Amino acid sequence: MNAFDELNSMLRRAHLLGTVSDLLAWDEQVNLPDGSTELRAEQRAVMAETQHAAAVETRIGAALATLEKSPDALSDEQRTVLRWARRDYDRETKLPEAFVREKAEQGSRAYHAWAEARAASDFARYAPYLEKNVELARREAAYLGFGDRTYDYLIDRHDPGMTAAAIDRLFTELKTELVPLVRAIVGSPVQPRTDWMRGFPEDPQERFLREVTERIGFDYSHGRVDRAVHPFCSGTGLDVRMTTRFHVDNPLDSLFSAIHESGHGLYDQGLRADQHHTALGQAVGMGVHESQSRLWENQVARSRGFWRYFEPRWRDLFSEQLRGVSSDELYLAVNAVRPTLIRVDADEVTYNLHIVLRFEIERRLFSGELAVPELPAAWNQLSDSLLGLRPGNDAEGVLQDVHWSDGAFGYFPSYCVGNMMAAQLWYRALELRPRLEDEFAAGDFSWLLGWLREVVHRHGKRFLTLELVEQSTGEPLSPKYLIRYLKERYGPLYLP
Amino acid sequence: MNAFDELNSMLRRAHLLGTVSDLLAWDEQVNLPDGSTELRAEQRAVMAETQHAAAVETRIGAALATLEKSPDALSDEQRTVLRWARRDYDRETKLPEAFVREKAEQGSRAYHAWAEARAASDFARYAPYLEKNVELARREAAYLGFGDRTYDYLIDRHDPGMTAAAIDRLFTELKTELVPLVRAIVGSPVQPRTDWMRGFPEDPQERFLREVTERIGFDYSHGRVDRAVHPFCSGTGLDVRMTTRFHVDNPLDSLFSAIHESGHGLYDQGLRADQHHTALGQAVGMGVHESQSRLWENQVARSRGFWRYFEPRWRDLFSEQLRGVSSDELYLAVNAVRPTLIRVDADEVTYNLHIVLRFEIERRLFSGELAVPELPAAWNQLSDSLLGLRPGNDAEGVLQDVHWSDGAFGYFPSYCVGNMMAAQLWYRALELRPRLEDEFAAGDFSWLLGWLREVVHRHGKRFLTLELVEQSTGEPLSPKYLIRYLKERYGPLYLP
Repeated sequence: MNAFDELNSMLRRAHLLGTVSDLLAWDEQVNLPDGSTELRAEQRAVMAETQHAAAVETRIGAALATLEKSPDALSDEQRTVLRWARRDYDRETKLPEAFVREKAEQGSRAYHAWAEARAASDFARYAPYLEKNVELARREAAYLGFGDRTYDYLIDRHDPGMTAAAIDRLFTELKTELVPLVRAIVGSPVQPRTDWMRGFPEDPQERFLREVTERIGFDYSHGRVDRAVHPFCSGTGLDVRMTTRFHVDNPLDSLFSAIHESGHGLYDQGLRADQHHTALGQAVGMGVHESQSRLWENQVARSRGFWRYFEPRWRDLFSEQLRGVSSDELYLAVNAVRPTLIRVDADEVTYNLHIVLRFEIERRLFSGELAVPELPAAWNQLSDSLLGLRPGNDAEGVLQDVHWSDGAFGYFPSYCVGNMMAAQLWYRALELRPRLEDEFAAGDFSWLLGWLREVVHRHGKRFLTLELVEQSTGEPLSPKYLIRYLKERYGPLYLP
Repeated sequence: MNAFDELNSMLRRAHLLGTVSDLLAWDEQVNLPDGSTELRAEQRAVMAETQHAAAVETRIGAALATLEKSPDALSDEQRTVLRWARRDYDRETKLPEAFVREKAEQGSRAYHAWAEARAASDFARYAPYLEKNVELARREAAYLGFGDRTYDYLIDRHDPGMTAAAIDRLFTELKTELVPLVRAIVGSPVQPRTDWMRGFPEDPQERFLREVTERIGFDYSHGRVDRAVHPFCSGTGLDVRMTTRFHVDNPLDSLFSAIHESGHGLYDQGLRADQHHTALGQAVGMGVHESQSRLWENQVARSRGFWRYFEPRWRDLFSEQLRGVSSDELYLAVNAVRPTLIRVDADEVTYNLHIVLRFEIERRLFSGELAVPELPAAWNQLSDSLLGLRPGNDAEGVLQDVHWSDGAFGYFPSYCVGNMMAAQLWYRALELRPRLEDEFAAGDFSWLLGWLREVVHRHGKRFLTLELVEQSTGEPLSPKYLIRYLKERYGPLYLP
């Protein structure tokens, strides 16, 4: 076996073990009996160990070294595989075992401290854990060759090639336009009716969700949707496991959650199936993944065209509940905007400001401008200036998200990078296919999916996030399309 | 770490990997999208490899050797763990890799040959594969120290300590009584009504099944039941995954399947949870496992007491379907007897004769009395003499079962060993608790489950099959209780 085949076969093995771990995690959320959690924790631990052992096999290191000696002997695609395999291998091998163990134990302790602190709305008791997480992040970045550019490392981990400075430029431009837009919408006399949203039985909700996701192109011969407390999408494109939840008094929540997760699933299903174990068949990063989920959830499923097709179907299933609700009222409810303190409850307009807030905090935390004890005050002040809302306590402010307890700094910006990329893809699609919404109105979403497969999915990790945006839209990533989209969609509704 | 702790920790790891493989197999039957089968095959292959590597770790061999040097330093329980760990380790390590590979490949080829031969009802094209499987079984037995006692090895593999000679004695006595009993029942003018068995919707069937299995003691906080094409029970006692299927025109099928699988699940849930990775917390073998499923399915759930409690509940759910069906008619339908050529369709009386038939064939095949090409004729002749039915073709005769195609010789006898043990346990229970059926009639199954936990479940593999029967019932295994049970239950119904 030559070195490339050897590398390929070991990547394949590590990947397959990873997919088994993913299935255990999915099953834990969907099927696991209440009393079986400890067994599952042990199963996951043994799989994590096994998977790590497969990813750090010395034969991988040897194959990488051999291949790196004569890169010219490799094809373009093989070089892409090699580059990413090296990156992954370094991440798995450069962190000392003692550090990995310390981080895992600290993550578990910090999670419990966070949960308790949030319940008591008392940031002070969480602060020491957060300090420790910040220190661990700094050490990790140093181990992986980022020196003291810790926040760049943390961002790059989720969106390869992206930097704090790049995001800062994008977000500064974005918030300049977005804050006044939100103020204007908040001041609008137009308010969506919500009184009709009650008593939507789960079974027809599920039927509708299935029809919608199938219609936009989700392939149920390689995936399924189940119920879980939190919506998520896991698995590989060959077996995508999505989840959703149903609220009888909030049918739009489960519908849009499911469309969002389907967007992730469509990306997974569009990746090269024979290359899921290499960079050629893997998602670029979080930002691009989120661009796909958001594009289907927002640009597509909140469009007039989409509802022209699906509204009659929805009314068939829920004629009673929708009696007396006009099409315009329904469409306004689909596009409701109302600032809230809680990120996960936010609409698509204000959501971006929640992300800007977290980015500002993280950036200043890692640059040293902000110390951990100063976080609550900084949070509240930013919340006020960006959203016009001031948290009444830490639980609805700085303590609301789980991410930092696990050391997942640098993750939040991806959500907004995804939103910007989604809008930019959307306008490029409209340029190429101006009558796209008419196709939606006829129930045809195939052109859009085909185009995304072509310009995004099939490339895997061949391009970094920013390269892929430029490649697919002809322009560098810019917030202007997201701003334009939000103004064009929400302006006519709220600021006529 | 001392050698015992070391052994323990490695057994634990191998066991956990095994439970992950089991979950993949369960998920394949219950959840897997149609298009994802190839991925699943790869996932299972990589897990099988990983699990095998964990089971043959040289450190296990070293720990075993160390411990075997001074057995007196170990407790009774530790010696049990050691003895079985040695047995398992030898089975994993004594077969040459080339042999294991040859057997796996042959198994796959033979399965396809069997499926084709059955479809064409043409034994001749399957015969060469069966010859090869016989040869592989002989080699396997020799590798594992059984010399030319191949059939003893094959039986011992499923029921440790059991031999062909012992089964021969038991079955000879059994068939002497059973053949005339079946003849008499077949000649009886009493025939169950089946005309009312139609239109039983699945949801209430499922509700009833859930109530029954919960009531007999299945712990749903450590298990679940789902739908699959074939009913089965997998997982460990900490997370039992049962399956069943529903037929709207055969509600008794899914009910009794589910009770059968619950019986397996109750055994699993009664094994020592902290010892699932050692012999102290594992089932003795197939025969004992089957005794538990059959006891609940047959002795319990086909009893008058059981139906006195559950009939009113069943009628609540299916008042329409059961209109005009008397309690006696219902009870007779629950205990329908009708000889059939096909084992999996057989009732509990004639089922045992199907097993005797297969045992006779296997025994003579491995003793050399019978050559592969002679199998169809031998099968047909035995079928005639035991069941009074002669297959019209090989598909409904010698080709009906999948087992031999995979080399699973010696498996069939366990079913009947289980039936004998179930009946023997049943009469011992009645001796200790003569009013047991009255308790069932009041919906109370707790004494029986508690007793089985005490005399069977909690022992794990501490006793071999025959030892356990003697230990729990005070007598060596004998067919007389099964004969007595069948006569006492079916005599009054069919031969009044």
